[in-house]
Amino acid sequence: MANLGFIGLGEMGGRITKRLLDAGHTVTGYNRTKSKAQWLLEAGMRWAETPRAVAEAADITFTMVTNTAALHEVFGGPDGVLAGLGKGKIYIDMSTVSPAASRHLASQVPAKGAHMLDVPVSGSVITLEQGNLSLMVGGERAIFEQVKPILLDIGPKVNYVGGNGQAVLMKIAINLNLQVQILAFYEGLLLAQKGGIPRETALEVMLNSAIASPMLKYRAPFILDKPDEAWFNVDMMQKDMLLALEMGRELDVPMPTTALSNEFLTAARAMGLAKEDFAIVYNVLAKLAGLDP
Amino acid sequence: MANLGFIGLGEMGGRITKRLLDAGHTVTGYNRTKSKAQWLLEAGMRWAETPRAVAEAADITFTMVTNTAALHEVFGGPDGVLAGLGKGKIYIDMSTVSPAASRHLASQVPAKGAHMLDVPVSGSVITLEQGNLSLMVGGERAIFEQVKPILLDIGPKVNYVGGNGQAVLMKIAINLNLQVQILAFYEGLLLAQKGGIPRETALEVMLNSAIASPMLKYRAPFILDKPDEAWFNVDMMQKDMLLALEMGRELDVPMPTTALSNEFLTAARAMGLAKEDFAIVYNVLAKLAGLDP
Amino acid sequence: MANLGFIGLGEMGGRITKRLLDAGHTVTGYNRTKSKAQWLLEAGMRWAETPRAVAEAADITFTMVTNTAALHEVFGGPDGVLAGLGKGKIYIDMSTVSPAASRHLASQVPAKGAHMLDVPVSGSVITLEQGNLSLMVGGERAIFEQVKPILLDIGPKVNYVGGNGQAVLMKIAINLNLQVQILAFYEGLLLAQKGGIPRETALEVMLNSAIASPMLKYRAPFILDKPDEAWFNVDMMQKDMLLALEMGRELDVPMPTTALSNEFLTAARAMGLAKEDFAIVYNVLAKLAGLDP
Amino acid sequence: MANLGFIGLGEMGGRITKRLLDAGHTVTGYNRTKSKAQWLLEAGMRWAETPRAVAEAADITFTMVTNTAALHEVFGGPDGVLAGLGKGKIYIDMSTVSPAASRHLASQVPAKGAHMLDVPVSGSVITLEQGNLSLMVGGERAIFEQVKPILLDIGPKVNYVGGNGQAVLMKIAINLNLQVQILAFYEGLLLAQKGGIPRETALEVMLNSAIASPMLKYRAPFILDKPDEAWFNVDMMQKDMLLALEMGRELDVPMPTTALSNEFLTAARAMGLAKEDFAIVYNVLAKLAGLDP
Repeated sequence: MANLGFIGLGEMGGRITKRLLDAGHTVTGYNRTKSKAQWLLEAGMRWAETPRAVAEAADITFTMVTNTAALHEVFGGPDGVLAGLGKGKIYIDMSTVSPAASRHLASQVPAKGAHMLDVPVSGSVITLEQGNLSLMVGGERAIFEQVKPILLDIGPKVNYVGGNGQAVLMKIAINLNLQVQILAFYEGLLLAQKGGIPRETALEVMLNSAIASPMLKYRAPFILDKPDEAWFNVDMMQKDMLLALEMGRELDVPMPTTALSNEFLTAARAMGLAKEDFAIVYNVLAKLAGLDP
Repeated sequence: MANLGFIGLGEMGGRITKRLLDAGHTVTGYNRTKSKAQWLLEAGMRWAETPRAVAEAADITFTMVTNTAALHEVFGGPDGVLAGLGKGKIYIDMSTVSPAASRHLASQVPAKGAHMLDVPVSGSVITLEQGNLSLMVGGERAIFEQVKPILLDIGPKVNYVGGNGQAVLMKIAINLNLQVQILAFYEGLLLAQKGGIPRETALEVMLNSAIASPMLKYRAPFILDKPDEAWFNVDMMQKDMLLALEMGRELDVPMPTTALSNEFLTAARAMGLAKEDFAIVYNVLAKLAGLDP
Repeated sequence: MANLGFIGLGEMGGRITKRLLDAGHTVTGYNRTKSKAQWLLEAGMRWAETPRAVAEAADITFTMVTNTAALHEVFGGPDGVLAGLGKGKIYIDMSTVSPAASRHLASQVPAKGAHMLDVPVSGSVITLEQGNLSLMVGGERAIFEQVKPILLDIGPKVNYVGGNGQAVLMKIAINLNLQVQILAFYEGLLLAQKGGIPRETALEVMLNSAIASPMLKYRAPFILDKPDEAWFNVDMMQKDMLLALEMGRELDVPMPTTALSNEFLTAARAMGLAKEDFAIVYNVLAKLAGLDP
Repeated sequence: MANLGFIGLGEMGGRITKRLLDAGHTVTGYNRTKSKAQWLLEAGMRWAETPRAVAEAADITFTMVTNTAALHEVFGGPDGVLAGLGKGKIYIDMSTVSPAASRHLASQVPAKGAHMLDVPVSGSVITLEQGNLSLMVGGERAIFEQVKPILLDIGPKVNYVGGNGQAVLMKIAINLNLQVQILAFYEGLLLAQKGGIPRETALEVMLNSAIASPMLKYRAPFILDKPDEAWFNVDMMQKDMLLALEMGRELDVPMPTTALSNEFLTAARAMGLAKEDFAIVYNVLAKLAGLDP
């Protein structure tokens, strides 16, 4: 069993840590708000006072934070992960940041004798708990082969996609589809609804059809039964859309449906729905259709 | 076992007829081009010389043709289905036409003492052969209950959605998603590709992720291995998109991603790709991205 | 001076007739609702009881009605224009219909020894009154040369564009720009407004800039000072957008901004604004921006 | 007559300086590449070796550079404009940068006892030479009143819009319309063309119609007669579109036509057309329409 570290014990990071503990690994953890990690400490996780201390204690250190700024905070400086890395250690970032940001971190790691992989995931908390999470890996292939068994303890689908930064690019390329798919889905749902088919019936039929991606099956019903706390809200979704559009400009890939769908997230924010699950774009579209959702 | 009739023995209609024969039903068939039905005659299907003759021979008559014009041709006139209907008979149309067109046919059937249902399907030839086809049913619920066992012989998911015309509306609401989903998918794929990830790898990872609807799993790889004959080509896809947009105007549902995606089908046609599978919009997008697909 | 006939004495048709009377021509007129023509009768216009009677009385007969259905009504049948045409007469349609519909009428006229031109106009009632209306001409060039002096009495810009139906195509190609321009204009206006610039100031600066088309100068301020009666309402604008999109599919021209903008007219209708001037899309956009216009 | 300074003597800046010299003002100039300023030196302009030296020599100093980075370069540091400002001096930036960047500069100026205005222009080199340039002014109104006579020597339309940064916001709100208008214009032009109307004829008619903004009259014909050097190329246009979209997100204004049109600039870049005038989006659209432009 491996000696692991995990920084960023939020919705996803916390649950991944739990899986790693359940698989028998030793995990030293760190989170900005310690109280949120209480359940993991009770499950056997060790605590470290700084990201650096995690990296010093562990052979393989994971980070999973919300954006580039948060990542820089745990990575650099005297208390950061980089300061704690050493010869032969491996650093795995699971955050969704820009490929350039990821490559910039990766370029600083070899000087310590260590290696970095970017390993973002595709799927939700539910996917994770069902044991179906999909992981993408960027970095040196040999390092990937070394950690592969541990990654398989997180989820059953682990795909090596290329060098550093390529896995976060892959993740971004996938995530833009979330927003476009759900918007198109609701265009269809509203058509059915305004045509007289009960919303529940239309939803059920659509989620039984060939267009029902796992994401749609999971997210689309949110409009019927709004959760108390969104796991992937409008602001988070737009962060990923903007990364996609930025990469599109950098790589000269026009992305018409991505660009258009992104504006509906802006509309959702304008309507005060920034912290709702991104499925709330239903409300934006419904308002355009003259309904009062 | 039931005494059935089937008019329109093409890619889908032919295979559905075969399933009905395999389930032990008697089926009398008709197709404009008889030679295409040879394999079904060999499998035990009876032949009738006109749609009317089919309806006279059968208790329950199905039609499945490509568009409204073709449907009018087999439905009306001295040799049409309507002329052959009689007391207690049931007529089931599986074509994708406008709800209004479907309701117009349905309004003429009761005078014969017969009943009509609209029962479009969601899924491809492959879905059908795997026994996973999804059927939607519009019309009187009592009539639906009567034919339900036979519909279950076609596919395992049979959903009653409402009165006459509601099932084709449901189908249209689903189908617009095909085109939007595949366009967004290729925006992501091109991003990955131009960012240096091999196309095969990107495709595989995306089709293992939360956005992979059954349709995408089936259609998206077409770009790697173009089939000789398209089962759902650009022209057919646009026919459904136009039905969706028309219904959107009628029911006052704005459909931004549908309207935008539809223009890429026009572009595909402009590039001479009208008869290719609709997944060929990859080529349109790739050209916009400066590639020569 | 010429002996003219004019059928369709609405907002535009009535004012054009007045200009023709003012220029010294004899005009025989017909309108479905006679009372609306009272002011023209007082200005010297003669009255005829049917479109046919107009065409019999005049050497050159104009029609200007709202859509294809209305055009067919005044053109065909025992009391229609066609029945009144004869050797050497000229028939000029100024309505905005599809090129195919226009060509279909034109194909029936030669059998009477007469000729047809399609002469749609670009511009509003205001443009007309300022003497700046622009006319496009489709049909035989020799016939155009013959009537050119009379067309110049209507407006100063008269452009021959090609054979029958080409002028209405040209008109459609122009009109799609109205809707896209005004939508983009309001995107900018809302940006300025929400950024703290007073709406009146922003409007004035924008209408003094390089983007201020004559149409924008005339229409955009409607949001400040809504007229009692719209001269070109949401339904009329969408009729033209649909003609444009239909022609785009026929001629294989993808029209992304046209298709997208058209959905905002659907949204306007969904919000109960079908009979407002099309500048009302400001309200749709403002609602998307979280404002209560 | 005033004692002025001008930094950034490119296409626009150089010509504005010439107008100021012609109006009788003293102008001290600076440009990174001195040779480009030769014609102005011959017209009586004085030369300074650094931006700071310009600001020291002049009472009112103008800057007009291509982007935020270039502006920071001439503004800050030991040789920058700020270092040369002093009590009672006025600094006027005419560049198009983000409102935030403009406000950031403005916040540093009062410490020197000086004042700043942002005064972007709307219009092209041609507009300027015809004496029709439109100027927008952001900053203190009293300072504006003080310099107004000098601004009127540049162009006849000078509009005060609000505090610091508001004028560049106004400019951005206008500029997004350039790209959307030209894209819609070409959708119409291609429709006319593919429908059989000669391109020259269609262009002339459209530019005589109610949709012909001054910008379209000037830019749209570029496709017939491509200039050797673009004055406002694809990259520059996209810079402004991105500023608009960024402001839209900041101020919660969804901008669907802006977002969509921007993707066609990315496509133009992907096709190798980054340095062509932005009217080159015609080529992108023409390719989508199956033409080989």
